[in-house]
Amino acid sequence: MTGQTQKNQTIWLDEDYPDGVRIIDQRVLPFTYSEITIDSVESMAESILTMAVRGAGCIGVSAGFGMYLAALEARSLTPAKAEEHLNASADKLLATRPTATNLSWAVAMQLKALSGIEDENQRIQKAREIAVGISDDDVSSCRRIGEIGVKLIRDLHTEYGRKINILTHCNAGWLAFVKHGSATAPIYAAQKAGIPIHVVVGESRPRNQGALTAWELNGAGVEHTYLVDSAVGHIIQNGEVDIVFVGADRVSMNGDVANKIGTYLRALAAREGDVPFYVNFPSSTLDPYSKNGISDIEIEERPEKEVSHVSSVVEGRNVAARVLPPGSPARNPAFDVTPHQMITGLITERGLCDANPMALAKMFPDYVARAS
Amino acid sequence: MTGQTQKNQTIWLDEDYPDGVRIIDQRVLPFTYSEITIDSVESMAESILTMAVRGAGCIGVSAGFGMYLAALEARSLTPAKAEEHLNASADKLLATRPTATNLSWAVAMQLKALSGIEDENQRIQKAREIAVGISDDDVSSCRRIGEIGVKLIRDLHTEYGRKINILTHCNAGWLAFVKHGSATAPIYAAQKAGIPIHVVVGESRPRNQGALTAWELNGAGVEHTYLVDSAVGHIIQNGEVDIVFVGADRVSMNGDVANKIGTYLRALAAREGDVPFYVNFPSSTLDPYSKNGISDIEIEERPEKEVSHVSSVVEGRNVAARVLPPGSPARNPAFDVTPHQMITGLITERGLCDANPMALAKMFPDYVARAS
Repeated sequence: MTGQTQKNQTIWLDEDYPDGVRIIDQRVLPFTYSEITIDSVESMAESILTMAVRGAGCIGVSAGFGMYLAALEARSLTPAKAEEHLNASADKLLATRPTATNLSWAVAMQLKALSGIEDENQRIQKAREIAVGISDDDVSSCRRIGEIGVKLIRDLHTEYGRKINILTHCNAGWLAFVKHGSATAPIYAAQKAGIPIHVVVGESRPRNQGALTAWELNGAGVEHTYLVDSAVGHIIQNGEVDIVFVGADRVSMNGDVANKIGTYLRALAAREGDVPFYVNFPSSTLDPYSKNGISDIEIEERPEKEVSHVSSVVEGRNVAARVLPPGSPARNPAFDVTPHQMITGLITERGLCDANPMALAKMFPDYVARAS
Repeated sequence: MTGQTQKNQTIWLDEDYPDGVRIIDQRVLPFTYSEITIDSVESMAESILTMAVRGAGCIGVSAGFGMYLAALEARSLTPAKAEEHLNASADKLLATRPTATNLSWAVAMQLKALSGIEDENQRIQKAREIAVGISDDDVSSCRRIGEIGVKLIRDLHTEYGRKINILTHCNAGWLAFVKHGSATAPIYAAQKAGIPIHVVVGESRPRNQGALTAWELNGAGVEHTYLVDSAVGHIIQNGEVDIVFVGADRVSMNGDVANKIGTYLRALAAREGDVPFYVNFPSSTLDPYSKNGISDIEIEERPEKEVSHVSSVVEGRNVAARVLPPGSPARNPAFDVTPHQMITGLITERGLCDANPMALAKMFPDYVARAS
């Protein structure tokens, strides 16, 4: 700990750092809290790639701010050169991570808004406005997801008359967005409403984002228990989970959901145990161009070292500790796709939606129009 | 590495160490190979508890040798005191780990055989004979399991005309028995027969016994890939697994299987993907007194530290690396139970058996008789 006052926000503009964007460096969490300044599009791309910022919403907002940094960098260029720099910056940001929709959505929104603006100050002003807008929308969408999701928790509490056990996966908490989180929004809303809850958090190897969720919940005073990923089936089978909330990195128009590797196994166990399984996301995560998640969504394969090593703390130092002996190859698919048939409902800022093509088309007619 | 010639056997008698039993110390594997001498029943109990020896078969054989060490310790006692020591030693061994049947089975066999023997040399001789017998049976059972299981792999190879992808979990390899292993026996038999195979190994947090399996397979030259536990669903969904072989710690007479935590999730994914799922075990793992695994089998809860930390190597040293920040509680159920309806078949040294009460009663009439 650095003695800094810890924020409950992952990314923000700070007038003390006028040429940059401030972020919490999630590479050293949950053991070290550190704020850093990102002052170039290059360094923002690096931050997304190395997961200093991570999680669907936060990646989108970071990409939006990345384009604002690109506009700052284009300040003294000719209009043609400036456009070239914006396009190259967009490509750089898009190349970082392939699975989260929010990334390409935010970059496309900036490119469209900045296209044709020749005055540098106007361009910077616009880029800043769009980036802040994406960030504000992220915050309000997550808040709204919390309001919708907490009703489900309240209903279960009324029905069972006891503490409600909620399972989540990975970190779709505020660290994965700007504030509130998607999967965690109903959890924080339930806590605020005084509904007794207990959250079960899976480790989420290889990068142990479950430890980030545990860190968040511990900080917020929410009762929780941490388990290895393999233990999730057993506790669902044992009746120790009442409802599941997970996030999403990309959602197809048929309701299939790409999310952190292991989500699919949780959905299988929830279905087998008759436990309702909800996927929470701002509608920026919905991909109008993906008709079928299983066949359409590219699954990112990340470096082997995340599997052969574990990020940890030994004698107070952050280290990558080796767990696999040399000589054995590893594979690291970062996401999986849960078929819509296994999902009880999708929660976005627009409301609760059944996970099927017709229900999605009805709630998102603008997305259908965009793709056709 | 110590420069020792590495063995392919977990536990053995060595005439250079006449008052003890030699084991490979699995607490420091897969990063360090070390043989140690166990020279008291106390130290054997400690070895089982701390998992210096581990895996259903190896625990049973170790308990058998533990009772031999108890007989050595009882050498100069009166017959009454000797019997007292044997009973106390049995209790000590039984108290180490609750889930594996093989432990209680081996201890009961020794107690029965030694009961009433008053001559100390005769008692030691008998205890040694029983322990060696349990060990020899373990070796021949695993060899037989390999012969039965390899036929399934050969059939798939004939059908598909390509390399066969085999998924396993945890370590039910030779390290978990005396030699060969149960889940790995068909794998080693296939390799010997020249059938092209590729083995997918899940990490098996919290204790990463998947790394032991990777170490075994690497040593034996079997092609393999290591994954985090959460990735198993995705690769099955993706058609990258043709057959599953896992081991067992206790099997009920209805065919329910207790095995390493996470086995149940693999069975769910295999069923969803139409992948055959086999459980391999010597019949000493079958529990005649358990009628229903879900309700009867006690699931061991192991220390929280195995979850909050990971055994690893940092700068050449074996360390427990912290992965969960302090303040968050963890739980550590070590096993789960897979319902028999999800299991394609059970492979024991007696043959391939359907996983249902009638088929088991037919193949194991002596077990039915024992319990009634």
